[in-house]
Amino acid sequence: MLMALLNADPFAGTLALLALVWLAAKVGGEIALRVKLPAVTGELAAGLALAALHHRFPGVPDLITSPAAEILANLGVIILMFAVGLESTVPQMLKVGLPSLRVAVVGVVVPMAAGLGGSWALLPSGTPFAVHLFIGACLCATSIGISAQVLREQGAGASPEGRIIVGAAVMDDVLGLLVLVGVSGVAVALAGGGGLPWASLAKTLTLALAFLAVALTLGRRTTPFFFRFASRFRSEQLLLPVALAFAFLLAWLGNLAGLAPIVGAYAAGLILEPAHVQFLEAREEHELEALVHPLVVTFAPIFFVLMGAKVDVTALLEPRTLLLAALLALLGILGKFVAGYAAGGNLRSAVIGWGMVPRGEVGLIFVATGSHLLINGAPLLNGHVQASIIGALLLTTIAGPVGLGWVLRRR
Amino acid sequence: MLMALLNADPFAGTLALLALVWLAAKVGGEIALRVKLPAVTGELAAGLALAALHHRFPGVPDLITSPAAEILANLGVIILMFAVGLESTVPQMLKVGLPSLRVAVVGVVVPMAAGLGGSWALLPSGTPFAVHLFIGACLCATSIGISAQVLREQGAGASPEGRIIVGAAVMDDVLGLLVLVGVSGVAVALAGGGGLPWASLAKTLTLALAFLAVALTLGRRTTPFFFRFASRFRSEQLLLPVALAFAFLLAWLGNLAGLAPIVGAYAAGLILEPAHVQFLEAREEHELEALVHPLVVTFAPIFFVLMGAKVDVTALLEPRTLLLAALLALLGILGKFVAGYAAGGNLRSAVIGWGMVPRGEVGLIFVATGSHLLINGAPLLNGHVQASIIGALLLTTIAGPVGLGWVLRRR
Repeated sequence: MLMALLNADPFAGTLALLALVWLAAKVGGEIALRVKLPAVTGELAAGLALAALHHRFPGVPDLITSPAAEILANLGVIILMFAVGLESTVPQMLKVGLPSLRVAVVGVVVPMAAGLGGSWALLPSGTPFAVHLFIGACLCATSIGISAQVLREQGAGASPEGRIIVGAAVMDDVLGLLVLVGVSGVAVALAGGGGLPWASLAKTLTLALAFLAVALTLGRRTTPFFFRFASRFRSEQLLLPVALAFAFLLAWLGNLAGLAPIVGAYAAGLILEPAHVQFLEAREEHELEALVHPLVVTFAPIFFVLMGAKVDVTALLEPRTLLLAALLALLGILGKFVAGYAAGGNLRSAVIGWGMVPRGEVGLIFVATGSHLLINGAPLLNGHVQASIIGALLLTTIAGPVGLGWVLRRR
Repeated sequence: MLMALLNADPFAGTLALLALVWLAAKVGGEIALRVKLPAVTGELAAGLALAALHHRFPGVPDLITSPAAEILANLGVIILMFAVGLESTVPQMLKVGLPSLRVAVVGVVVPMAAGLGGSWALLPSGTPFAVHLFIGACLCATSIGISAQVLREQGAGASPEGRIIVGAAVMDDVLGLLVLVGVSGVAVALAGGGGLPWASLAKTLTLALAFLAVALTLGRRTTPFFFRFASRFRSEQLLLPVALAFAFLLAWLGNLAGLAPIVGAYAAGLILEPAHVQFLEAREEHELEALVHPLVVTFAPIFFVLMGAKVDVTALLEPRTLLLAALLALLGILGKFVAGYAAGGNLRSAVIGWGMVPRGEVGLIFVATGSHLLINGAPLLNGHVQASIIGALLLTTIAGPVGLGWVLRRR
């Protein structure tokens, strides 16, 4: 008993798990690079492999149930999006505002219509219309974390195409929110015979847009005062924790307004400009981006490995599930590809299209919402449909970085 | 329901909590600096203040029950000890091996004897001898995290005194393990009439010493091969995750051998020498220490704020608890102060003595062990004694950095 107590620092197991994740991510990334794929696809595959290993050999620690892996993965994607935001400024983003908006709108409407049609063609004829609608909705969101990493890897994060992708993804988040609230409202209204919840829908959208507008205008004007106040402190090593606190507070506030935390973190990075922090940077002899970089390098791989580990491969192998998943994925990819051409101008549409392809965790939130919606006592999305959508999201999540890496290298 | 689901990203609350911790740590650190105390005392006080605020206003998030704060705090102290280890090399540590050993042995024997005597004088005469013995044992361990931070703040981390403090603290961890196993064995033996568990005692000590010996000799010789292999990878951003994986694996292995994870992380830092990683450092244009630094800056404050928050002030305010706590703290401080003089040579004994004063979490493990040991059906340490020891540990934890900061500034 006593020896067990002495040895039982529960955190030691977490340390071993994290070491395993980093080593697996680096080996996976290396293999991906050697076969000319983005390193992040190797990190996703490393997660798949670790989960499969745990399944076969229970001695291998379980990533999916580790609270530490979950927390550090969440931290990783938040810090990644903050770092992506730091690479651009608000005026630079406004320049790509219109093309981004076109990409976002087309990228929501086309995949949604295609998914609705595909679902209508493949599912049995008695299926309620709300199910088709929901399946379409699941294909419209964009998960930006993976594309952001590929763009960074290829040094294209600050290119016009890169900015349009990130800008459109942020707008997608707002549009996706609207679609989710709308589609859920329609599903409930169709089942219960009530009217559509226009008021709640309008309120949600207004709140999200108001947050972004206030953050990018008023927030941008008050940030310099915040950092000027901090620069009066005598403490050393102030810049990084204060900048992170700023980003995390914006992520939290954005979430209160209904946005995903990564959108708030990205907005914080956009708002923060070198001029705001130059005094602290000079005193600490480090630039903020250089200080954030090691955090991205450390924690972003945990996010990608965990994302790969969460893929339930065996649930996908039923033929009809696989068929619906493949069709939905194809429609989802084509829909976003069309959206890439909506950017217009002298831009590389294929880069934008592929950058919008990954769905990842945003689509999963849609699936979770649909499976919790009870229509006449039964969940709106049954197990087969859920597995198919998750499979489609997975296929887009793997196809996205592969395609994006491919078109980026072809220039 | 739907809005709640959309807004309910459970990680958003964690982000707000972390932002609060960083801002509180920096404000607390700044106040401490202005009254000429080490910044880390201000971070401890910030934790106390946040806990008190939560107690009064439940709207303020609760640090103590947050799994994310706990995980990131543990990560922070592990990375801090790795960074402290990186500042020195094995040959440099061997040079201070003998004085460190003297400081460690005297720093275990004297506080233990003093604590035993103090307990014997103050507690009722019917108290079992095993209780006095255990109270003495609780005073012998050293918690190095706080002193390591103060030494870093004052740029004395690589001074002979700094190395002796850290070296002695590592030896303390091994000695403390021996004392804990021994005292627990004696307590059980005295109660049950059995013999002393010499075999288990010898096995535990051998295992811990063997780990350190193997890590510092064989480990140091194989590390270059490990990093030379990693340097054949084409992936970028390899150095930091691979070095962290190395440190975390050693922390885990050390824990399997019965040592605290921070000891393994420190040993990993000692083993890693610039020559081992120079190829990766050259390719990534960053030194490993510069890459680890932002991680220390980000996560170590979470450890110190959480440590402050965990102090239960109200439980300490009973007079007889306070009296015993104050006496034990005084004996604990004096005992470690005497140990500082055992270093001998041309060294600043007061710096070493104060550096050994903080007890922190190591002492808490002793208290937890003592309160779980049942002697004739009752816990060995009752509530009053437990609260007193925790109070004494707390007082040494606050007095340590204050005293160390004071003597370091006087040179």
